[in-house]
Amino acid sequence: MGTPSVEQLRDAVRGFDRLYGLELLSFSETEVTGRVSVREEIKQPAGLVHGGVYASVAESLASLATHVAVAAQGEMAMGLSNSTSFLRPVTEGTVHARGVRLHRGRTTWVWDVTFTDDHDRVCAVTRMTIAVRPMPSPAG
Amino acid sequence: MGTPSVEQLRDAVRGFDRLYGLELLSFSETEVTGRVSVREEIKQPAGLVHGGVYASVAESLASLATHVAVAAQGEMAMGLSNSTSFLRPVTEGTVHARGVRLHRGRTTWVWDVTFTDDHDRVCAVTRMTIAVRPMPSPAG
Amino acid sequence: MGTPSVEQLRDAVRGFDRLYGLELLSFSETEVTGRVSVREEIKQPAGLVHGGVYASVAESLASLATHVAVAAQGEMAMGLSNSTSFLRPVTEGTVHARGVRLHRGRTTWVWDVTFTDDHDRVCAVTRMTIAVRPMPSPAG
Amino acid sequence: MGTPSVEQLRDAVRGFDRLYGLELLSFSETEVTGRVSVREEIKQPAGLVHGGVYASVAESLASLATHVAVAAQGEMAMGLSNSTSFLRPVTEGTVHARGVRLHRGRTTWVWDVTFTDDHDRVCAVTRMTIAVRPMPSPAG
Repeated sequence: MGTPSVEQLRDAVRGFDRLYGLELLSFSETEVTGRVSVREEIKQPAGLVHGGVYASVAESLASLATHVAVAAQGEMAMGLSNSTSFLRPVTEGTVHARGVRLHRGRTTWVWDVTFTDDHDRVCAVTRMTIAVRPMPSPAG
Repeated sequence: MGTPSVEQLRDAVRGFDRLYGLELLSFSETEVTGRVSVREEIKQPAGLVHGGVYASVAESLASLATHVAVAAQGEMAMGLSNSTSFLRPVTEGTVHARGVRLHRGRTTWVWDVTFTDDHDRVCAVTRMTIAVRPMPSPAG
Repeated sequence: MGTPSVEQLRDAVRGFDRLYGLELLSFSETEVTGRVSVREEIKQPAGLVHGGVYASVAESLASLATHVAVAAQGEMAMGLSNSTSFLRPVTEGTVHARGVRLHRGRTTWVWDVTFTDDHDRVCAVTRMTIAVRPMPSPAG
Repeated sequence: MGTPSVEQLRDAVRGFDRLYGLELLSFSETEVTGRVSVREEIKQPAGLVHGGVYASVAESLASLATHVAVAAQGEMAMGLSNSTSFLRPVTEGTVHARGVRLHRGRTTWVWDVTFTDDHDRVCAVTRMTIAVRPMPSPAG
């Protein structure tokens, strides 16, 4: 697949991912990494990084890595389920995310995404199931 | 608990929830509702509402409703796990969310949050487990 | 689909379901019910009904109800994920299970299964995602 | 903690686990392994190992390993949620299970249990959340 360039990585982050500040660092068919800088605007009222941020990052990383891999065969990737467990609050620094593919099936891919803080402590984990489906009409 | 006023509802939405545009409509110990207007900035690259938005809304609604109920007893609420299934993409209009409490335990509360579109079709569902813990020190 | 007869219900319970004692009570395309009598052999060491029993019952009820509905179109049903939350231990009597279909997609069906004890208290809940796939070869 | 003896391992398997045939192979505070021989009585009607068997094994391994670790401090362990994804059917041989602890919190432990077949292919994965609570009264 080759190594994605900085421009490709930046261009892949749009819409919601751009809003909350996802940085995509690398991706391949089997591994994907990214991070988010902790700011007030991604926190919940008690001052911790909002649980939805972890779920959002996992969703994006796993969907993107799957999508790039299957698009060449005329297929598309869509999140089917996102199951996130919160283990340790993060209040500052950077949330680091690393997704590893657990399973590549014909119709579903499964990824484990692990979140760590700046001290390399695991803060959250997500199991993402991605549906792989035939691409709809040309414009799809 | 009384009915929360418009100001209380608006004030409860901060940080990340304000960033993506959560509107809190009502909450009690057993039910909570909210919504989000669909705009480009909450979508993923294919033009659908980003899966992380549903997870974020569920997290906020269930955490908030639990928190308000337990704070009076000196306890706090924190998301423990968020399990969201995506059933039907939404591309426009409003995402409507309604959370219903399934279980009130001493240390965990469980909520089901159901998301519908403007045609009242179910688009996503989240099972949220909220941990209830003693409040830490005053500054906590 | 008509109402299944007592013989059909009994015949659908085989293998593992027969081992732990599932009784299938009714099923249709949108709802399915069953129960299990609590005995020592379905408990864990502390004397509570084993968590795996709830997961097993949910798996069977949702798979069976989906399978019967799609088999007529030459499709088969297989569990994709089973997410069970344990809310209240059961130590005696009967575990009652009721599954309700949340979603009927082309490739996945989603069910919520709720477990109650003899006092109608909710003891566990399962979200089951069932994959619907074309039937393989005739012998499949 | 010392290495558990064969007798200890065998004695820990009771009730439901004995019914379906769990063999406990090893456990410590951070890792636990076991297996189940595939027989007709643990299959579902299509001839595959029943999904509930994976969920049951994960529940038992994670609960047991947590329980042994916390009992010394007067605490007990109980399954809070069990989220199992099915990746590849097993029809014969042995189901091998290995649980690894992801998180040790004061009130919850989280384990990942991975299931493989005789060809070392991953067949299912479970994320188990175990609640750790003060032991109730002596008789509890």
